[in-house]
Amino acid sequence: MAESKSNELMERIVSLCKRRGFVFPSSEVYGGINGFWDYGPLGAELKRNVKEAWWRSMTQQRDDVVGLDATIIMHPAVWRASGHVDTFSDPMIDCKTCKGRFRADQIAEIPCPQKPSKCVAECHGEKTEARAFNLMFRTTVGPVESEENLAYLRPETAQAIFVQFKNVLETSRQKVPFGICQVGKAFRNEVTPRNFTFRSREFEQMELEFFIRPDEVIQKLAGQVAAVDPADPLAVLRAPVATWGWEAWHKYWVEERLRWYESIGLPRTSLEEYWQTREELAHYAKATVDILFKFPFGTQELEGIAARGDFDLSQHQKHSGKSMEYFDEEAKAKYIPHVIEPSAGVDRLALALLCSAYTEEEVADEKGRKETRVVLKFHPRIAPVKVGVFPLLKNRPELVERALAIRDRLRPHLSVFYDESGAIGRRYRRQDEAGTPFGVTVDFETLGEAGPELRDTVTLRDRDTMQQTRVRIDDLLPLLLEKIR
Amino acid sequence: MAESKSNELMERIVSLCKRRGFVFPSSEVYGGINGFWDYGPLGAELKRNVKEAWWRSMTQQRDDVVGLDATIIMHPAVWRASGHVDTFSDPMIDCKTCKGRFRADQIAEIPCPQKPSKCVAECHGEKTEARAFNLMFRTTVGPVESEENLAYLRPETAQAIFVQFKNVLETSRQKVPFGICQVGKAFRNEVTPRNFTFRSREFEQMELEFFIRPDEVIQKLAGQVAAVDPADPLAVLRAPVATWGWEAWHKYWVEERLRWYESIGLPRTSLEEYWQTREELAHYAKATVDILFKFPFGTQELEGIAARGDFDLSQHQKHSGKSMEYFDEEAKAKYIPHVIEPSAGVDRLALALLCSAYTEEEVADEKGRKETRVVLKFHPRIAPVKVGVFPLLKNRPELVERALAIRDRLRPHLSVFYDESGAIGRRYRRQDEAGTPFGVTVDFETLGEAGPELRDTVTLRDRDTMQQTRVRIDDLLPLLLEKIR
Repeated sequence: MAESKSNELMERIVSLCKRRGFVFPSSEVYGGINGFWDYGPLGAELKRNVKEAWWRSMTQQRDDVVGLDATIIMHPAVWRASGHVDTFSDPMIDCKTCKGRFRADQIAEIPCPQKPSKCVAECHGEKTEARAFNLMFRTTVGPVESEENLAYLRPETAQAIFVQFKNVLETSRQKVPFGICQVGKAFRNEVTPRNFTFRSREFEQMELEFFIRPDEVIQKLAGQVAAVDPADPLAVLRAPVATWGWEAWHKYWVEERLRWYESIGLPRTSLEEYWQTREELAHYAKATVDILFKFPFGTQELEGIAARGDFDLSQHQKHSGKSMEYFDEEAKAKYIPHVIEPSAGVDRLALALLCSAYTEEEVADEKGRKETRVVLKFHPRIAPVKVGVFPLLKNRPELVERALAIRDRLRPHLSVFYDESGAIGRRYRRQDEAGTPFGVTVDFETLGEAGPELRDTVTLRDRDTMQQTRVRIDDLLPLLLEKIR
Repeated sequence: MAESKSNELMERIVSLCKRRGFVFPSSEVYGGINGFWDYGPLGAELKRNVKEAWWRSMTQQRDDVVGLDATIIMHPAVWRASGHVDTFSDPMIDCKTCKGRFRADQIAEIPCPQKPSKCVAECHGEKTEARAFNLMFRTTVGPVESEENLAYLRPETAQAIFVQFKNVLETSRQKVPFGICQVGKAFRNEVTPRNFTFRSREFEQMELEFFIRPDEVIQKLAGQVAAVDPADPLAVLRAPVATWGWEAWHKYWVEERLRWYESIGLPRTSLEEYWQTREELAHYAKATVDILFKFPFGTQELEGIAARGDFDLSQHQKHSGKSMEYFDEEAKAKYIPHVIEPSAGVDRLALALLCSAYTEEEVADEKGRKETRVVLKFHPRIAPVKVGVFPLLKNRPELVERALAIRDRLRPHLSVFYDESGAIGRRYRRQDEAGTPFGVTVDFETLGEAGPELRDTVTLRDRDTMQQTRVRIDDLLPLLLEKIR
């Protein structure tokens, strides 16, 4: 896609997000605050559905993962042990001319506030050397403001899982291999937040730490370590096997996660897998795969799936002096488990879903004139509203009454939007823009005015095909639940 | 309840929370961090269920409330407008002898770290005058640490709703009266956090701002303002009426909220309503009702329901220079809506549910010996796990296979815990402590060994009565879904 065209597309998506209440700038009436975004009614539901789908797929639908809900502010020693205090930073330069601060690795892309230069790299301002800027937000806990009471807003949710590993292990009756997952806010004081909600300073993560036996333990126990079979790499998706080493588990989670993205409506063709090179890997990582999505502004990371060895638990054992070892009854061995970490961003996923769903189509209006239909083709599973319910006319009490009864019947089970005002075509279009997959219209046929065979039926409209079918009111709920699941 | 007895009870509840993985001290391996608590696997599910029940009751189950998901860090001007920068503080004193800092209004209750005094008020340390300590956590946004870049962690979720009032109004097709609700983290730098998770520094809120017409507008439009009828105060629960003024709407929300607490299993007798006196009310508030729960450590607030007039929107209009007015088509009038605010704490509600559910019973074990059964009698709607599935014996593959098949059949619809190890009585007891309302056991009758009429049936055990009934496997899912709803 040419750059200007994709910029234009992105602008139209951002504009829809504002117009329909998916995303607003935080504190907009006060001029906003750079890098912070609020989700309006539709956006809040979209995010909830994404998180719910992830959580259910991780916990409810499997036996070997349990949840955790830890605090954002933790003991500062956590971040010394994890390495974030020392190394979680971006290189930053100051411009002595314009007084701006910029990420040194992005100055070729960031526009200079002083005209006429195009970007900071090309401007004539005198610049400082690059130096490390730590991305953790800092605060003080308790009534005394001192270094001792310094604390950080977590820059990731993962560390709480490592820190609580033993508590969860002792209370949940899990055995290695098993996982602990968490969804929650994290904060990074980005030097230059950008690309709408993609890189913001406050965001939400969905992280799993999946603890496995070290390869040596498997070797001893089973006499072999099963790796990925190059001839049949997707064998990992059949069922976990006791001989799997880190390589098989890592591959398993990459495939699981790709499958999950597809299950919520991101086509496989919109995703890319990027295997980090040996040079890019963190020193403790054995392998990291990034799952990328083709955003209009570039192909960017949605999730990283890293094989982190025993680095994190070992660091916390060292810094806390508390054992992070696991006694494996079957292997009769004590060890620090290794870990596979699928780590996803909720906000960038919500943005990917919006970009993927956004469609403009040429259609004919009631009078046969061409017009552009904007429609969000969300998977029904994550659509903010599942069904619109409409009486054909607002001023016919018998239509309104039946429509309200249908709304009340559906509402305990799924999210319904009732709308009676405006031409029915306009009401459909409004729900198209909200991404509502189904529309139910109560019309004169419902009342039996077109003959007894259509009495107690309604029009069910499909958002994507715009096709309308007649459905018996009694069949509506099971039919919709089936399509939404 | 005598104090020592209720302390003991509270200790047993706290011990259960740790033992079964409901709540852990945050960063425990590093010695913890005062005022911060993590939720383990069962606690995380309990909290999720509570928030889910609240959100659904507010949004999905009614037409007149929409959701919002705003950032924790907002523009600092928000907190100047709301009054938090100036007045959101507790009186604090320093002790020059022990160097401790204490809330001046609690020194009669807080133990002095210097022995032998019992409490700070009675100790001989020289104390400073009380002075205001602002409870908002502070941080700096962006790479420059300066006063200008100072920001706060929100001390409540409500203000984001006021600040985004116009954006939501313009995108959601709502008309006054309507509400905006939000669930999320908030932070208060309490001088002395206490009572387990009840008063912590990081907590979660569920807040609704319900916008209504000012009484003058109703008077003009309808010729009268309906207040609460002292002879029939619960008339408000039938259906909202266009003539309702703030008093009727306030009463409506008090009753709605009480009804909701009952619907998730807090008996009406465990709750108290406290109407703040004129002296206690904030200067702008017309009425505030606190809903209190009888905790073992005292009767304390779960939720406040305040009639706040147009104070908040007016303040933001004044400070931002942006209009917060609403044009009411029906009344042909422009006004700043008034607001009713039901504001609840998630963590204290989770704690209330734990305290209310906690039961110790004398029962006989298999050999007829008396033992104490600890059981959490959660309402099925909020129980972390809905059903335990057990093969009677682990070493009989035909039992295990049937049990796993039942688990797989139930799992897409509800949270299942599969357990095959240990005597069946012990497995029941473990689920009693987790608060799991139902247990399903696959036994030899299931296999048809007691005759064909019991083939394909299982034992369904009720947590509270411990009664066991035979149920056909095919009837299990609809039966459980019915009980859980």
